[in-house]
Formats: sequence, structure tokens, C-alpha cells
Amino acid sequence: MDTNTAAAKAALAHIEQDENPATIKAKSRDFFWYSPVLKDRMDHLEADFVVNPKTEAEVIEILRVCYAHDVPVTTRGAGTGNYGQAMPMRGGCVMHLRHMTAVKEIHPGRVICEPGILLKDLDSACKEHSGQEIRMFSSTWATATIGGFIAGGSGGVGSCTWGSLRDLGNIIRLRVVTMEAEPRVLEFRGEELARVSHAYGTNGIITEIEMPLAPAYDWVEMFVATKDFIAAARFAEELANEDGILIKLASVYEAPAPFDYFSRVRPHIEADDTLIGLMVAPHSMDGFETFLARRPEARLIYRSDRSDWPKTPGPVFEYGWNHTTLRALKVDPAITYLQVRYAFPRHLELIERMRDEFTPEILQHLEVLRENGKVMFAGLSLVKFSDEARLEEIIRIHEEAGAMIFNPHRYTLEEGGRQSVDDRQLAFKREADPKGLLNPGKMIAWDDPGWKYDRMYAYPAMSKPAEAAE
Amino acid sequence: MDTNTAAAKAALAHIEQDENPATIKAKSRDFFWYSPVLKDRMDHLEADFVVNPKTEAEVIEILRVCYAHDVPVTTRGAGTGNYGQAMPMRGGCVMHLRHMTAVKEIHPGRVICEPGILLKDLDSACKEHSGQEIRMFSSTWATATIGGFIAGGSGGVGSCTWGSLRDLGNIIRLRVVTMEAEPRVLEFRGEELARVSHAYGTNGIITEIEMPLAPAYDWVEMFVATKDFIAAARFAEELANEDGILIKLASVYEAPAPFDYFSRVRPHIEADDTLIGLMVAPHSMDGFETFLARRPEARLIYRSDRSDWPKTPGPVFEYGWNHTTLRALKVDPAITYLQVRYAFPRHLELIERMRDEFTPEILQHLEVLRENGKVMFAGLSLVKFSDEARLEEIIRIHEEAGAMIFNPHRYTLEEGGRQSVDDRQLAFKREADPKGLLNPGKMIAWDDPGWKYDRMYAYPAMSKPAEAAE
Ligand SMILES: Cc1cc2nc3c(=O)[nH]c(=O)nc-3n(C[C@H](O)[C@H](O)[C@H](O)COP(=O)(O)OP(=O)(O)OC[C@H]3O[C@@H](n4cnc5c(N)ncnc54)[C@H](O)[C@@H]3O)c2cc1C
Ligand SMILES: Cc1cc2nc3c(=O)[nH]c(=O)nc-3n(C[C@H](O)[C@H](O)[C@H](O)COP(=O)(O)OP(=O)(O)OC[C@H]3O[C@@H](n4cnc5c(N)ncnc54)[C@H](O)[C@@H]3O)c2cc1C
Repeated sequence: MDTNTAAAKAALAHIEQDENPATIKAKSRDFFWYSPVLKDRMDHLEADFVVNPKTEAEVIEILRVCYAHDVPVTTRGAGTGNYGQAMPMRGGCVMHLRHMTAVKEIHPGRVICEPGILLKDLDSACKEHSGQEIRMFSSTWATATIGGFIAGGSGGVGSCTWGSLRDLGNIIRLRVVTMEAEPRVLEFRGEELARVSHAYGTNGIITEIEMPLAPAYDWVEMFVATKDFIAAARFAEELANEDGILIKLASVYEAPAPFDYFSRVRPHIEADDTLIGLMVAPHSMDGFETFLARRPEARLIYRSDRSDWPKTPGPVFEYGWNHTTLRALKVDPAITYLQVRYAFPRHLELIERMRDEFTPEILQHLEVLRENGKVMFAGLSLVKFSDEARLEEIIRIHEEAGAMIFNPHRYTLEEGGRQSVDDRQLAFKREADPKGLLNPGKMIAWDDPGWKYDRMYAYPAMSKPAEAAE
Repeated sequence: MDTNTAAAKAALAHIEQDENPATIKAKSRDFFWYSPVLKDRMDHLEADFVVNPKTEAEVIEILRVCYAHDVPVTTRGAGTGNYGQAMPMRGGCVMHLRHMTAVKEIHPGRVICEPGILLKDLDSACKEHSGQEIRMFSSTWATATIGGFIAGGSGGVGSCTWGSLRDLGNIIRLRVVTMEAEPRVLEFRGEELARVSHAYGTNGIITEIEMPLAPAYDWVEMFVATKDFIAAARFAEELANEDGILIKLASVYEAPAPFDYFSRVRPHIEADDTLIGLMVAPHSMDGFETFLARRPEARLIYRSDRSDWPKTPGPVFEYGWNHTTLRALKVDPAITYLQVRYAFPRHLELIERMRDEFTPEILQHLEVLRENGKVMFAGLSLVKFSDEARLEEIIRIHEEAGAMIFNPHRYTLEEGGRQSVDDRQLAFKREADPKGLLNPGKMIAWDDPGWKYDRMYAYPAMSKPAEAAE
């Protein structure tokens, strides 16, 4: 620890800190290791100290002190992100928001809370208060925070109905603290929300959140099996297009992934079964059963409200979104993934082309998503990893065909996004983080405005691995 | 009154009946007179007697007695239908369900009620019980019944989000009484619902209804004005395509209709203003304001929650759907209307073509509707009526272009619909109404299976006007 860092740590001694080296190590990591590329680059990263504020006032104090001592601050919700988002590239301070969990107000259609509350705890509070729940959640509902979801996530369970987190209306208001000599507290609504949502905490710390709510229902969770992948994709799409049937999830897992990777489901299917994971509102089950009966090729093999399976599969959404990758990885460590956008109206055609090109190197995993009012698919493709060059080639072939990739093998905002600078985020960083101390190394536009995206960006100031450093 | 009818009336003397001739006349009519064509054909129709059952048991008794005496029965909710749906073509019995208003059960996401309750009273009960409301309602919310909406309506306020009434999931269950020597009571779900929903009560009487519910919000009602009609249509479509902004209504009224026909709005606009009527959830107002600010050509002239208008315009939805026609008719009795389907993806193109063809003979009135998951438009065009031949020609030109017409100048199910027999409804009528006594003259397939739809169908057994009969 250099003298500056030590001074900052000491100046913050009155705020709770973690001293156990194993804890500090653990709190410096997230799920970056899903990517063999990031695993190779980031495995050694570690904070110098970890501080756990309890209030916005403590957050302000941490930012003021670290600013004064030029110490980088990387904010942590629960560290379930996949892009190394929450990892301290230059060490310094990890600020863990786990104590900031208050639910402040609940009204019809909206909730106001602190950022560190787990998605599942937020849902419980809203359900208990007035039968409401958040519109959408990351499949890491049980472990992730709402602040991390907004700063690092994109959407998930519920996005088949409500679109993505950053669509207008899916976040109402954010309260944000800047990192300056004297940190400011700002309130963002409307267009301003884009400054800090999905900015990885690089330009301000979110201390209060106002989110829209939807009614909470006892969603019926289901698995449907078919022998035909494209029929399964059509099933999911057509179901999402049934305006009168309320759904929260429609995922498609290409055979043999369900058989190979979903151990609790395996006894009930065959290797050539493609699986559809669903959440349907209980009062839409009559409509759903009618829809299902029109498609005799589709077999309903599980429904959570009437299950006779000896072992429960657990929540169906924990098979979807990036949980699919997790389950595959547990069985086959050589699996990694890509995030693909199969946009309307070419979505099915693109999926078929990618299957022709890449089966069995890639198995399709699709999530129904709404974008601009249209049902389309997000792909979280399961990729059999060979080497980085081949991964690059796979990405190139997708993009040339028109299937945009959000590359989860990169740690910068730009490379994990649309490979372009977000001017609003950059402009706000200039204002809110003049020393560039917030989660450094994650915004290329800040460090290297002329970057060409012709190869993987390597943050020059990133801490070196121990051996290299010695 | 013939002897059979008199006998049936006498046999039903213990059930409440209306004896006042003016009441009997009034309860034999609906809003058929919106159509000059129907006005010409149906103005004289009148029931022989009107009976007001209080229970399903009384409904059964009425049907049993009328069956025994070969007396036609035409069911009446509130008589707000436009197609002469509730008018007794051969006289006989009008059965008015105004006393059957019980709300039996309310659960998260669904309600069970009797058919005669007004939409507004049903909403009040659901809102008071648990902050819920029905997903969609006819703009005659304040005066129409839920049974009449299901048997005669098609959709309305809420259909921009939930699609049409007959889409899977928008009705859960119907309980239906048949007209046989011994009436049966049947429960319909799923595919069976299509037998009796939108069947004008020609093949069974609905005595209990289970409907899905949505959360009730204090919808913010608004008017937005623009100088450009197509920009207004795009505004409405794009707003409906914002997945994160929850809306319940998006209507477009072409200039100068708002100025000419909406007297309370007139002081706030100019003749060349096209108007957009909106209902937006309160927790979506931030998102909406952001959306609005991106479109500087659109002026928000009224919002119900912050109005400074000296005279309130009343509910904005009472400017939409068929209320637009009503307001136009009140000012200019020569106005009538057409119901047009501008289907995705050609909707805007078709609308522009029809405007090129028909302005100013027709003024466009559009309602955003979801169909198969896509935002499109229902047109309830305001037509300056000249004569029936011209009306026919207008219809033909629409249909040739690909804009389907649901002709509101016809009293049969087929002509008001897709000009084809609904086999499920016909098959069920064979079972449930073997003597053809339920709302006779409304299902061509029953009376004249070989009908060609080459001209307006004229029910041969229809009662003649008084002079003609004498
Ligand atoms: C198995 C699995 C499944 C997943 N499924 C999904 C999914 O369905 N959808 C999805 O979007 N993501 C998914 N993810 C990624 C991740 O779990 C989610 O985005 C999650 O919501 C992140 O929350 P967190 O609390 O773990 O955030 P963290 O990982 O701790 O943080 C994420 C980012 O936000 C920043 N941050 C955190 N809190 C704040 C704050 N208060 N102010 C400013 N910046 C802050 C951090 O610095 C970091 O850059 C998945 C990951 C895994 C491992
Ligand atoms: C100004 C205006 C605006 C309108 N806006 C809309 C709109 O937005 N959307 C829309 O869909 N319609 C609209 N309509 C038409 C009509 O108001 C609605 O369809 C309304 O819901 C009908 O309800 P009601 O109780 O008046 O039915 P009625 O007119 O009494 O009956 C309609 C039909 O249903 C039958 N029926 C009634 N109850 C039963 C029962 N229990 N069992 C079997 N059959 C039965 C009747 O015999 C008749 O054929 C509008 C009409 C007007 C005049």
C-alpha cells in the first residue's frame, strides 16, 4: 500500500472496513472468470482496502478523502457482474454498499430505496407492502443488488414484457454523488439518467434509486420440451406476442444443453430436446394452456404449481439469462459465452444462419426481449472455447451477418457495449470525477480518446500481477 | 302481441317486467342510429315485453318459458352497442340484465362477476378491494355492462397494451345458459370462449364472467396537439412502442375534428391542430416527459393532474373510440363512421393512402391497438355521409387497398365482422338454440347458409314498420 492509500485508509478508520486479506481478495473480484480472456488479464487484481459505508454521508466522506489522497474508488454492489466491472484495476479502495439497504418509500407503481439492497429483498418488501415487485431483474436476483443492476446490468427476467433497463420509464430517478474535493449530490431524471446508468460507477455513485413497480403475481414457472429448435424459438416468440397472456420469462435452450447441463431436468428429457423456460402469470394460465394445446409438438414437462418431480428444479429463471452459462460452465469448464442481439425483424433468420455456421461449436441460448415494442431475441450463446483468435473470428462472423455482439470478454464500457463512446457519460465524468479516480480503466474515451477498437484495449495503468511487479 | 307471446309474458309474471310503453320502446333500441343505414332499417323495432331477471335461475326460467312458447329473446346489457346488436328483430322478449350486478370474487389478477354490472362499477369494486381494474374497457365505461362488452364489444381503452377482448387471455371463463326445453348451464374456457364471445347473445346467455385484472393507477390523462397529422400518428405509435412507458390510451384525431367537435378543447387549439389523447400511468410520467421533450413539434396542452383549464374536458377516453363519433354527430348530424383495421406493418402507409383518397370527406380518427404483439391502428374514421352507394364505394376502396373494414352499417355478425361464418359460433347455436330464438336475424349463417355477401343482408322475418304492417 503506498503512502497516499495508507493515509486515505487511516482517514476513514471510523467507517467499517474489512481487514481479513481473504475478504479483501474476495471483494476485489466478480464473475469476470466466465471469460477465459478476462480471467487471463484480471485474476490478480486486488483492492488495497475495503470500506463499507452505512449512509450517504459516509459515501460522501469516502469520496472526499480518496479524492484528497488521489486514491481510486471502485464501487461494489454484490460483485456478480461478468465484465470485471467491479474489479479495482489500480487497486485502491473498494467501497462496498452492502449496508445501504433501506427501502424508503413504496407507492402504487414505484419504490424508493438505497442501492445496496438485494433484488430479492427489494421484491419481498414491495410484495409485502402492496403486492408489487420490480418490473425486471437480473437472474442473480437472489444475490445481486439493485445499484449494481442499474450501474452494471442490462435487463433480464421481465424484459420480455418491459424491455431493457435503460429504456425510457424503467428507471425513474437516481441520486448520485460525485467525486470531487467537495462531492456534490445530484438528482437525475429523464435524459439525465443515461449519464450514470450502466456506467459501471465510473462517473458517480448512486445512493438512492426510484424504480417503477409492476404487480407481483405467483408466477407459474414451467419447462416445455420440443424436438425442434426453431419450433421452440417460434413458440417463445409467439407466446410473447400474445398480448393478452402476461409473461415474465421466455428462454430457449438448444439441445443438448438442457440434457447435458441441467442436472435436475435431465431425468425428464432426452438429449435431443430443446427446452423452453417460462414464467406465466397465474391468471394467464388458461390462455397459456390454450396456446399450448394448439402446438402439439410442445410438451409441458414441468409446472411449478403442480409438480410431481421428486427433486424441484428450483426457480426456472435460474436456468435463464446468464445462469445458463453458469450451469454449462459447472459441467464443462471449456464453455464460455457471447451476448448477441438478434434484432427484429431479422431475428429468426439470423439465428438460423448462426446455427448453420457454428453448430455444434456454439449452442443457442435465446432470451425473449422487447425492443422498440417488438419481440426479438437476446442470445447468450454457449461457446466451446478454443482460443482467443477463434473467439474473435466468431464475433466477426456474427457482426458481419448483422447480429450485434456485446462482448463479455472485455472490461471497458465501450467494448462491452456498442464500441462507441457514450458522450453523455464521458461529459458527466469530466464534471463528476475530474481526477479520473472512479473505477479507473473502464472508460476508454477517458483514457485514450483516439482509440480505434481494432484490438482489445489494455488499460496501461492496470496493476501488474505480483510476479511481474516484483 | 300474439297469443304465444302473451302466454310467455303471463307465465313470467312473477319476474320483474317493464310495463311503461316508453320504457319498452327505449329498451328495444341501442346506438344503431349512428348509422344512417341502420336507422333507416331498424328504427321501428320494438319488443313485446321486457323482463328483468335478478338471478341465473330467473334467466333459466325466462329461456325455458320463451322456448316453450316459441318467443324470441334478445338480451340487453345497457344497449350502448352500435350495430343494432341488442334490438329485437322479431319483437318478442327483451331480457334486460340490469339487476345481475354482483361481484362474486376478486383475486390478484382476476375478478368473477355477473354480466349486468356496469364497467365503471366493476372497476370501482376491484379498485376498492385491491387496487385493481379491468385490463380494457369500452369508452362507454360509465354506461355499458361487462356482459354487453363481451357479447358485443371488441376492445377499447387498454387495448393499446393488452390487445383485443378476444385475444387469448383477455377473458378467462364464461358461464353460459342455453335456450332449450331444459336450459343447460355450461362453463367455457380456452378455445370454447370463442363460441359465445362477440356472438351478440345469439347462442347462449352469459350469466357469470371471469376476467383478468391489471393494477389500477391514477392514470394521467392528456391532450397533445401538433400541426402535422402523420407526426401525430407516429407520436402515438412510438409512444406505444416504448416498452417501459405504461399507457392505457393513445388516440389521434385529425384536424379540424378536435376544433370543430370537441367544444371543451376548442378554446385551447386552432383549427389546424391534430390532437392526441393519452392515458399514461403516473409512474411513467417521467419517461413520458422525456419522450415528449424529444419531439418539440408536439405541445402538451392538457394534463388531468395539473390542469388550469376553467372547464374540465372530462375523461379523455370519452373523446376516444366511438365517443369521437358521438361528439362529431352531436355537432354535425351528417357524420357517420367506419371501423378500419390498419394492420402492421403497412399501417401508416395505408393511412396515408386513405387520406390522399378521401380528405376532407373522411377525417382520420386512429386508436393505437396491439395485434399479435405489434402496435398498429384501429381507424374509427369520421365519414361525411352522402348516400349508401357512396358509403359502399368508400368501403370498397379501403378493402381493395388492404385496409379491412368492420362495417358498422350492418346488423349481422358476419357483415360487421370478417364477412365469413364463424363455424364455432354456428355449431354452438345448433346445440344451444335449436329453435333459433336467441337474438334472431343476427347470424346469417343460421338463416341463409349460402349467402354471398354481395349486398346488405335483409333478415326476411324482421318485424315490419307499423304502417307497412297495417
Ligand atoms: C449467473 C449470472 C447471471 C446473470 N444474469 C444477469 C441478467 O439476467 N441480467 C443482467 O443484467 N445481468 C446479469 N448478470 C450480471 C450481474 O449479476 C447483474 O448485472 C447484477 O445486477 C449486478 O449486481 P451486483 O450487485 O452484483 O453489481 P456489481 O457486480 O457489484 O457491480 C456492477 C457494476 O456496477 C457498479 N456499481 C455497483 N453499485 C453501484 C452504485 N451504487 N453506484 C455506482 N456504481 C455501482 C460497480 O462498480 C460495477 O461496475 C448475471 C451474472 C451472473 C454471474
Ligand atoms: C359512444 C360509444 C362508444 C363506444 N365505444 C366502444 C369501445 O370503445 N369499444 C367497444 O368494444 N364498443 C364500444 N361501443 C359499443 C358498446 O358501447 C360496447 O360494446 C358496450 O360494451 C356494450 O355494452 P352494453 O351493456 O351496452 O351491451 P348491449 O348493447 O346491451 O349488448 C351488446 C350485445 O351483447 C348482447 N348481450 C348483452 N349481454 C349479454 C349477455 N349477458 N349474454 C349474452 N349476450 C349479451 C346483446 O344482445 C347485444 O347483442 C361504443 C358505443 C358508443 C355508443
